[in-house]
Amino acid sequence: MSEPRTEISSLGEFGLIDHLTRNNETHHASTVLSIGDDAAVLDHFGKQIVVTTDLLIEDVHFDLVYTPLKHLGYKSVVVNLSDVYAMNATPTQITVSLGISNRFSVEALDEFYEGVYAACEKYNVDLIGGDTSSSKKGFIISVTAIGEVSPDKFVKRSGAKKGDLICVSGDLGAAYLGLLLMEREKKIFLESPGVQPDLEDQSYIVGRLLKPEARKDIIEFLEKNQIMPTSMMDISDGLSSELIHICRQSETGCLIYEDKLPVHEDARMFAFKLEMDPTACALSGGEDYELLFTIRQEDYEKIVLNEQISVIGYITEATEGLKIQTRSGKEHSITAQGWNSFK
Amino acid sequence: MSEPRTEISSLGEFGLIDHLTRNNETHHASTVLSIGDDAAVLDHFGKQIVVTTDLLIEDVHFDLVYTPLKHLGYKSVVVNLSDVYAMNATPTQITVSLGISNRFSVEALDEFYEGVYAACEKYNVDLIGGDTSSSKKGFIISVTAIGEVSPDKFVKRSGAKKGDLICVSGDLGAAYLGLLLMEREKKIFLESPGVQPDLEDQSYIVGRLLKPEARKDIIEFLEKNQIMPTSMMDISDGLSSELIHICRQSETGCLIYEDKLPVHEDARMFAFKLEMDPTACALSGGEDYELLFTIRQEDYEKIVLNEQISVIGYITEATEGLKIQTRSGKEHSITAQGWNSFK
Repeated sequence: MSEPRTEISSLGEFGLIDHLTRNNETHHASTVLSIGDDAAVLDHFGKQIVVTTDLLIEDVHFDLVYTPLKHLGYKSVVVNLSDVYAMNATPTQITVSLGISNRFSVEALDEFYEGVYAACEKYNVDLIGGDTSSSKKGFIISVTAIGEVSPDKFVKRSGAKKGDLICVSGDLGAAYLGLLLMEREKKIFLESPGVQPDLEDQSYIVGRLLKPEARKDIIEFLEKNQIMPTSMMDISDGLSSELIHICRQSETGCLIYEDKLPVHEDARMFAFKLEMDPTACALSGGEDYELLFTIRQEDYEKIVLNEQISVIGYITEATEGLKIQTRSGKEHSITAQGWNSFK
Repeated sequence: MSEPRTEISSLGEFGLIDHLTRNNETHHASTVLSIGDDAAVLDHFGKQIVVTTDLLIEDVHFDLVYTPLKHLGYKSVVVNLSDVYAMNATPTQITVSLGISNRFSVEALDEFYEGVYAACEKYNVDLIGGDTSSSKKGFIISVTAIGEVSPDKFVKRSGAKKGDLICVSGDLGAAYLGLLLMEREKKIFLESPGVQPDLEDQSYIVGRLLKPEARKDIIEFLEKNQIMPTSMMDISDGLSSELIHICRQSETGCLIYEDKLPVHEDARMFAFKLEMDPTACALSGGEDYELLFTIRQEDYEKIVLNEQISVIGYITEATEGLKIQTRSGKEHSITAQGWNSFK
């Protein structure tokens, strides 16, 4: 008789995390918030710190054929800072661990670190440690970010209430379209190495893929205008997937409007060129690193002042499910089609 | 003209870290101690926390042919906790990130997490987060540990002073001999799959390799007996390599005695069997996860009470270099022959 074997893909990433942590108990009084949000919250000596970590693996999360190492260093830091901001916290320190194969030279690593240091400077965080190791194959990057948050100021995914307005920062879908463009050019390059890539002046969508920014400005705006979101997370896997997290953890439903989804003009045009639906890219494309958050209706007046924030819908009862109303007025259910690296 | 290319192996792991962090500046008042020790120390709101991280990569740091997944989960946690104890701190939380290829089943991951949870329970730490991703090839583990330390109680590598006594906990070299045994048995197994491994009842050295423990007991002993080490680090790369770190960072020399090096009887016998020098294994074998620390001479009376602590020599002037006196009375220089994963 053989041992039972359950494929990881049958659970999916979030199912897997639920499964592995189903019996996890925390014992320290200092563990305020554990697994299940953008970051954990620790109460060390009466004030709160936030901890989050990401693992980036070559050919799963990035492709060195079209990713400059300096941009990769920058992005590796930014995606972690984005998780800290998503807790309504301010990042203060990071650690960076690398697994490096011998095809890397010291000069190549210098480029990578140039990007790391550039992000540290821009976001005012200190690089405080890490681990450097050889890898048999592929480049591996593990970043942990630490931040500070005033007591009771951190924002979880689980606080959305019926009637709250659903907001997103910036625009959605462009990073995914940038990825499709780079994958297309890579394919052409591999088939005909002499052909120079034709990026068609698509610097906006390429920039969104290769050099994303974390929304420090939004957190500062919320603070300045005394808006306390009822829930918040960053959009790394795609809007649909993140709405499902917020509604599941808040035990609510939601209704969003297709015509309210912020899509950059360059992204919209490139989607049409590929005969794709820009709305589908906004819902399911990953890696935008924008913030998705909910606010009470009475905060609407404050939020409209900021052009970087779009109100895309509102929170409903759990029984109403998760819906999107299209331009033609029809309602569809929102399903997760975000990135799932186990598919 | 081609770009200059410097091989990483020409710098070595520590040379590489020095190179990459040569211009690193920290700006936050909360960053008390940054790169260059077992862990970083952060002062958040007047009390101090300690942060350390390790990246473990299949076939670089572990071999799944002879490493049970439960032991691997346990060890992945313990090696990080060891770095926290090496700061004279108490670990409180960990994050665990995994890169998993599709050859892993959910059941295999459950085994790994059984080990993670066993270590969490034994050392009283909370698992608070992580990241789970697919990997193209090989199993990748990144653990970050966080700990607490009372202000000014953390112990750096740089505080050793001339005349201080050099101490090590437990015994040295056994994990390396366990590794040699497992590599030998793996080779035999691969050549003749029918042959069962002959571990010759070497449970001690195999256990030291596969299921190391962090020296929580030593930190508690030091606290209870009010001994404040002048410098401390954990022995992960080998005693020689760690002595070089302490002496370099403290700007001192040292003299240690071969006949004072603690070597377990089982390790000594197995070294003889392989016609190896047990002293060389104690000096250069890695992964013992014992503590190396220095104390003032006036603390000697307190330390002799603990059979788990050996005084192996003392700190000298930097000009005297790093020396070992052999049983025959000769002095040799200590050179780094610890693990260097870039060799």
